[in-house]
Amino acid sequence: MINFDYYSPTRFIFGKDTETRVGALAKKAGARKVFLVYGGHSAEKSGLLTRVRSSLHEASIAISEFGGILPNPKSGPVYKGIEQCKKEKIDFILAVGGGSVIDTAKSIAAGALDDGDFWDFHERTRMPEKALPIGIVLTIPAAGSEGSGNSVITQEETLLKRAATGECLRPRFSILNPELTYTLPQYQTACGVADMMSHIFERYFTNEKGVDLTDRMCEAVLKSIIDAALVVKDTPNNYEARATLMWAGTVAHVNLLGLGRIEDWGAHALEHELSALYDVAHGAGLAIVYPAWMHYQLNHDPARFAQLATRVFGSLTNKLNIQDTALEGIQALSDFWIQLGLPSKLRELPSFRKEDISVMTKKIKMTRPNELGNFSPLRYEDVEKVYNEMI
Amino acid sequence: MINFDYYSPTRFIFGKDTETRVGALAKKAGARKVFLVYGGHSAEKSGLLTRVRSSLHEASIAISEFGGILPNPKSGPVYKGIEQCKKEKIDFILAVGGGSVIDTAKSIAAGALDDGDFWDFHERTRMPEKALPIGIVLTIPAAGSEGSGNSVITQEETLLKRAATGECLRPRFSILNPELTYTLPQYQTACGVADMMSHIFERYFTNEKGVDLTDRMCEAVLKSIIDAALVVKDTPNNYEARATLMWAGTVAHVNLLGLGRIEDWGAHALEHELSALYDVAHGAGLAIVYPAWMHYQLNHDPARFAQLATRVFGSLTNKLNIQDTALEGIQALSDFWIQLGLPSKLRELPSFRKEDISVMTKKIKMTRPNELGNFSPLRYEDVEKVYNEMI
Repeated sequence: MINFDYYSPTRFIFGKDTETRVGALAKKAGARKVFLVYGGHSAEKSGLLTRVRSSLHEASIAISEFGGILPNPKSGPVYKGIEQCKKEKIDFILAVGGGSVIDTAKSIAAGALDDGDFWDFHERTRMPEKALPIGIVLTIPAAGSEGSGNSVITQEETLLKRAATGECLRPRFSILNPELTYTLPQYQTACGVADMMSHIFERYFTNEKGVDLTDRMCEAVLKSIIDAALVVKDTPNNYEARATLMWAGTVAHVNLLGLGRIEDWGAHALEHELSALYDVAHGAGLAIVYPAWMHYQLNHDPARFAQLATRVFGSLTNKLNIQDTALEGIQALSDFWIQLGLPSKLRELPSFRKEDISVMTKKIKMTRPNELGNFSPLRYEDVEKVYNEMI
Repeated sequence: MINFDYYSPTRFIFGKDTETRVGALAKKAGARKVFLVYGGHSAEKSGLLTRVRSSLHEASIAISEFGGILPNPKSGPVYKGIEQCKKEKIDFILAVGGGSVIDTAKSIAAGALDDGDFWDFHERTRMPEKALPIGIVLTIPAAGSEGSGNSVITQEETLLKRAATGECLRPRFSILNPELTYTLPQYQTACGVADMMSHIFERYFTNEKGVDLTDRMCEAVLKSIIDAALVVKDTPNNYEARATLMWAGTVAHVNLLGLGRIEDWGAHALEHELSALYDVAHGAGLAIVYPAWMHYQLNHDPARFAQLATRVFGSLTNKLNIQDTALEGIQALSDFWIQLGLPSKLRELPSFRKEDISVMTKKIKMTRPNELGNFSPLRYEDVEKVYNEMI
């Protein structure tokens, strides 16, 4: 177990009707004029935005609206939001939505108190040291941004997708009402499930020794996600299962499960190229990437894969051939994602052509100076092989 | 899953040599004159206090010392500490020690900014709204106070043991270096293990439905504690096992494992009377109380006990008789604690007399206005029966 710092000062408000507390919470955090960031029409149609506005009004907080944020958030709206915040003397940013809305809000919050280019924070030439306080009303459990100090934005011109990190980006509060997720379509729910499970895998596959405590916590959350996802598939309005997915999404990425470990975000990077090329949802892309990545990594540490298989997927250890157990686990994971309706192979993507693999590999070579990941780091020849396993 | 608020703003600094960062951390939190609270001679003898003082000096922070805090902390030193802090214009409280030192420091921190009697906070006639900022260097993993907003103090005159709670009591930072626990004697380590496991049981035994995520997280931490405790018993200087126990102790009580659940602190209250009467360590008392409490509660929800047995103690479910499985789990827990050298029955306490049971039951009747706990609440006749099970 390596040394670690753990700091998660966000206040999580979880449960039914909790969005009605947003006005009081924002006021307590000093808000007088809120920049309300949101996405498309669903939050308006469901009445959520009306409830949020009315809670802010009750707390005598003025509102400046900034809607229309799209998935895979881009730098353009961030620049626009920063300008508007500065002009209107905004003192609090409230994001109502999922990861894209939240990340846009976070980067606006940092840019609004900065005289330079906010993209520096994503290029990591500068770190964000201060930001307007941020509050969240979460509507899509997946990205985990409601509990993290990160924001992932794509630069409009270069299509480079880069993460900014800073303690000032951690939300003051995050409101999580599982009922708000009842109307999420099954496919989008499934993408969220793959996303949050991947956040755990990114931490699970480590070479660090003496991490049984976090191993077991990872496995506990994975098992609960799997059980809840199957319930939600059949009964989308099951409160307990929706609640499990929502809180699991936060726990998966609040970094509690990565403490004392060296993480591996190689598969994550492989997926970014898929999203960029095919406009496939991040979670759906991960469902294609991870089984292939796992197959390729299996020989590096078969015992760890066998542990995942036995503890999460209920496989029985084959002591004569531990790799068989490991493979059974990877297959079970892939089967589970297929059962949820997610793709498992590149050929399922309508616009996929075999030549794309060398395109994606070259793009990784161009934009990532180092080997990918830490478990068994991927060189560029490995990257191409892993992509080939996905066909 | 019931609605919950989760707020844990403490910064945890975990790992080797981390106590050398105390000066910089205290300075960042605004400290100029620190009240250094500690216990007996071990922190002095080990050189820990010297390292802490030198780190504070390097950060140009003045120190006022307040040593000699004893286990089961009393109100007397708290009053004395408050007076000293006010007189010396202290602006930061640093606790170096275990739960007793930390809780004393917390109550001093609240009292130092208050004009009334700090005991009001423990009587709960007033809530602490502000306190001097608190930092921790943990030396005994057990109480979990390094990550909580609670302080448990015993009033000197009445021997009433009462908890104060407030967000202002949450430490700004807690430094956890597992190496500092190498010298803890096996018995004291075992008491800590029973204490942290009990903090999980107090959350595990709930009637709330849809709590599988936190169930599994509880089970994950319990399993890791058991494995690590057995390693530490044989090799007290095993870093990974000491690290597991230290972080598990924090996770067990930071309330992450109790979210969305109604908890049951009945067994905890039964133990308080044991500690008061026999001066037995809290953890050792819990090792006597819990198996009896579990036996008594078994019929209320045999499936939950069977789940504990199968998931934590590796029992195989006997589907024809689920109670057999449940009993096997309770026996395995009791055997484990015995293996660590803890008592399992009241008769093992040298001064125990059978008449004490009615004394303890009466004391509970006098000082606790309500039934004990929430799982299957204990009335006073139940309390007497549970104590009788412990003989």
